[in-house]
Amino acid sequence: MKDKTLLMIPGPTPVPENVLLEMAKSPVPHRSSEFSRIFDEVNEDLKWIFQTKNDVFIFASSGTGAMDAALSNLVNPQDKVLSLVIGNFGERWAKIAESHGAAAERMTVPYGEVINPAELKARLDKDVNKEIKIVTMTHSETSTGAVNDIKTLCKIIREHGALSVVDGVTSVGAMDLKTDEWEIDVVVSGSQKGFMIPPGLAFLTASDRAFEVHKQCKYPGFYFNWSSYKKSLANHTTPYTPAVNLVIALHTALKMLKAEGLENIFARHKSNALLLRDCLRQMGLKLFVEDDTKASYAVTSVFPPDGISVPDIRKVLKEDYDIIIANGQNDLKDKIFRIGTLGFVSERDILTVVAALNASIEKLKRR
Amino acid sequence: MKDKTLLMIPGPTPVPENVLLEMAKSPVPHRSSEFSRIFDEVNEDLKWIFQTKNDVFIFASSGTGAMDAALSNLVNPQDKVLSLVIGNFGERWAKIAESHGAAAERMTVPYGEVINPAELKARLDKDVNKEIKIVTMTHSETSTGAVNDIKTLCKIIREHGALSVVDGVTSVGAMDLKTDEWEIDVVVSGSQKGFMIPPGLAFLTASDRAFEVHKQCKYPGFYFNWSSYKKSLANHTTPYTPAVNLVIALHTALKMLKAEGLENIFARHKSNALLLRDCLRQMGLKLFVEDDTKASYAVTSVFPPDGISVPDIRKVLKEDYDIIIANGQNDLKDKIFRIGTLGFVSERDILTVVAALNASIEKLKRR
Repeated sequence: MKDKTLLMIPGPTPVPENVLLEMAKSPVPHRSSEFSRIFDEVNEDLKWIFQTKNDVFIFASSGTGAMDAALSNLVNPQDKVLSLVIGNFGERWAKIAESHGAAAERMTVPYGEVINPAELKARLDKDVNKEIKIVTMTHSETSTGAVNDIKTLCKIIREHGALSVVDGVTSVGAMDLKTDEWEIDVVVSGSQKGFMIPPGLAFLTASDRAFEVHKQCKYPGFYFNWSSYKKSLANHTTPYTPAVNLVIALHTALKMLKAEGLENIFARHKSNALLLRDCLRQMGLKLFVEDDTKASYAVTSVFPPDGISVPDIRKVLKEDYDIIIANGQNDLKDKIFRIGTLGFVSERDILTVVAALNASIEKLKRR
Repeated sequence: MKDKTLLMIPGPTPVPENVLLEMAKSPVPHRSSEFSRIFDEVNEDLKWIFQTKNDVFIFASSGTGAMDAALSNLVNPQDKVLSLVIGNFGERWAKIAESHGAAAERMTVPYGEVINPAELKARLDKDVNKEIKIVTMTHSETSTGAVNDIKTLCKIIREHGALSVVDGVTSVGAMDLKTDEWEIDVVVSGSQKGFMIPPGLAFLTASDRAFEVHKQCKYPGFYFNWSSYKKSLANHTTPYTPAVNLVIALHTALKMLKAEGLENIFARHKSNALLLRDCLRQMGLKLFVEDDTKASYAVTSVFPPDGISVPDIRKVLKEDYDIIIANGQNDLKDKIFRIGTLGFVSERDILTVVAALNASIEKLKRR
């Protein structure tokens, strides 16, 4: 039996049935009071999940669009950006900065590890002329499954006087990220992750400090210009045609998330990820991020057992069990596999994937 | 009875039931052979509808995103862009050029009129040092319902040696636009128009000439960088997470359009628009674009009868007949109303909206 697919990848994540049905409704005209009413509720619920009093802008784009929107609105050519790189998505920040003419300096750790706050502090202490304008980082690094201590990192950045820009793509709605309390300047995320809807929307929130820097940006571009979104949001609308069906689906998904409650959502992701990690260890598998305190609760990276390849594991899981897990990316391709535990994922799904993974490996061993 | 809505606005346009049902399917993992197979077919069908042999990039964005992507990949600060402005969307090109630091010169006509090719020729003839790098224009101007003769305009631009950049948002898939044969350099469009799917995708195709200019662009940004899309497309994928459900819906919609055939699609839009225009004239209404040869077949702008307001007409049509038509934009708000005849619209819909509009005006006259 096919087409009974279970998505256990770090995005797109499973979408609840009632959210999928919202996707199938005829588009609501976006310049109508009916849409504005829904849009206003979505905006309030996004503030809740981003833990901020500031606006959260909704872009019709992928998460990378929101990352681009974060830096295109802040940097001018020759500005200095420090990028904390613990994986591909940390590296992406540096590339985005460079695509806008900024000078990106990378602080890189071996993939699987995380940034040591003391090393960041030491680097910023050397920046006596305060040339570093922005520090970028990933919260939950989707390519490795490691998680940065952004609370501590952003505090150090704030004390130095630079802006902190955080990729919360696989963390917002899955792991605690207190935008305002931790004084983070920019947080971005994407729809097909903790938000439990299909891909196509991205989100960005910016502090007043970041907005002041934005005002000095010479060529912020057009589509992602924060000021346009801010102005339109105050008028209960978007500057350009929103992806209406996705916004309506998000409206339903956010109501489900609110009913569960933030603390419960975070606890579910934590207990699911730790359960998965325990089960994998009991199966004798080696985790790419061994230390539980440095592991993301959204995605877990695993080495295959000796003599069994990642493509074979993925193939059996897909063909025999209709479960999709992810390969490693770039240099980690075929070296690790990744299991997403993000979004509409329950403890039952963890037991299921563990059982099927176990069975798949047994099958492959007998070959 | 409510919720039997008929969308007669220039976007979002009505979506066929089988396309809506595709929207409700669980997201396909975007890095899978299953998705790549669909993606490849969509790309071939997009070339067909854009009438080009070149790649057509699919962005997760609104149509304005693709407009931004057109210029952000071509202009450097201080470049000269000539924007042919016949309405709000023509003006948008100039604003986008300026947002990237280019110097935009506007050739503006009163809204409702179109660009006179002889005037464009005269302006370019004065550009003896070939300083004008790009000329932007709208094909079907959504805010007025006028249509530029882009075949002639782009020929003049090509002979001058500048790049032509065309907004085909409400024309591609509705009116003939021969990208390659007319040697247009960049064409953009959006999903919620002639493509018969909800908003959230945008399209861009660029000529080899445009790609050569792109390579000289210093700060093209990241998310919309053409080179990334070109490289990924050759690998049967997208550089960043695509809006999977919309791509799958597009796959189905394009099959429907191919079954109808380009000539039939264009003929349907033409006969529907001309039928609507005839009926409106018979009702004694004055059209904003009087000359049929200068009128878009995608959207028709109409003055209200004396003594009856645009908001009242829209209100009665919505409340009594569940038909949505558009108001005018900006300065034209409450001065004209606009009826979309774009996408999944049949002759029956034209008869319906005419009958309901007639009944609405009669009701309002009796008040």
